[in-house]
Amino acid sequence: MNVEFINPFLSSLMNVLETMAMTKLEPGKPSLKKEETSRGDVSGIIGMAGPQTKGSLSVTFQESLALSIMEKMLGERPDKINDEVTDMVGEITNMVTGGAKNILGDKGYEFDMATPTIVSGKDHTISHQCEGATLIIPFTSESGNAYIEVSFDVLAK
Amino acid sequence: MNVEFINPFLSSLMNVLETMAMTKLEPGKPSLKKEETSRGDVSGIIGMAGPQTKGSLSVTFQESLALSIMEKMLGERPDKINDEVTDMVGEITNMVTGGAKNILGDKGYEFDMATPTIVSGKDHTISHQCEGATLIIPFTSESGNAYIEVSFDVLAK
Repeated sequence: MNVEFINPFLSSLMNVLETMAMTKLEPGKPSLKKEETSRGDVSGIIGMAGPQTKGSLSVTFQESLALSIMEKMLGERPDKINDEVTDMVGEITNMVTGGAKNILGDKGYEFDMATPTIVSGKDHTISHQCEGATLIIPFTSESGNAYIEVSFDVLAK
Repeated sequence: MNVEFINPFLSSLMNVLETMAMTKLEPGKPSLKKEETSRGDVSGIIGMAGPQTKGSLSVTFQESLALSIMEKMLGERPDKINDEVTDMVGEITNMVTGGAKNILGDKGYEFDMATPTIVSGKDHTISHQCEGATLIIPFTSESGNAYIEVSFDVLAK
C-alpha cells in the first residue's frame, strides 16, 4: 500500500470534524500498523470494494472525544456512548470515506463503498485483514485521541 | 431487507464451521436487530458493495467458542484472543461471505466483497448503519455463542 492512499482519508477526517463539529485534530506520524495499535471506545468501519481495489477503513475515537464532538454538534453532551453517538460515528465514517473516494477516483482508483458498521466497547482493538500493509495515523485533540487505519489492496490499475 | 438474504449467510457459517472445525452450531430464530443485541469478544466484519446492493456482515463469537474453534482446527488452544485467532475469524468471515455471495449472485444480487476487519474487545456490540433493517441470528454451541448480523440494502435489481 502506497502512502498516497492514506492522505485523502487524513485530510477528509480533519475537514469533516472541523466543519461539522469545530473540532481540530492534530495528526501524528503515519506508520505501519505493526508498530502501533489503536485502542478506542467507538469505531466506524467501512469496506471498500471495486474491480481494481479493495480494502477497509476504520476511524476510532476515545469516548471523551466522541462525546465532545456530539456536544459541539448538538449542544448537549450524552453521558455515554448511545445510539446517537454510534449514528454520528457512522455518518463521519461515511463522509470521510466519501471524501477520500472522490480524491482517489480522480487518481484512477475506483471503488464502491459498503455501508458502515459501528463498534462500541471499552478499549477495543481492530485488525484489518488484507494482502498489503495497514497504515495507521494517530490524532490528538483537546478532548481525546482518534485513529484512522486504512488497508487498501490495489489489484490492478 | 428480505429474509431471503440472510439464509445464505446462515447456511454458509454452519457449513464452514462444521467442515473446518468440526463445530456444530444450533441456529436460533432470526429477528430484527431492534429486538436483540449481540455481544461478543471477537467479531469479523466485512463490507459488501456493488451497483445494485450494499451492506455489511458481522460474525461475532464469544471468546470460549473462538478458542475452541482454534483448538479443533490446530490441535492447540490459545489462552486468549491473539493474532492467530483474529486471522482465523477474518478467514471465516471471508469464507461465509464468499459462500453467500455465490448463492446471492445466482439470484441476481451481485456485489464485490471488501477485505474483512476484525474487532477484539470484551463484550463489544456492533451496529450496522444502512437504510433498511438489520437481521440478527443467534447461534448456540457446546463451547459458547455466536451471532450473525446482516444488513443489506438493495438499490435496484
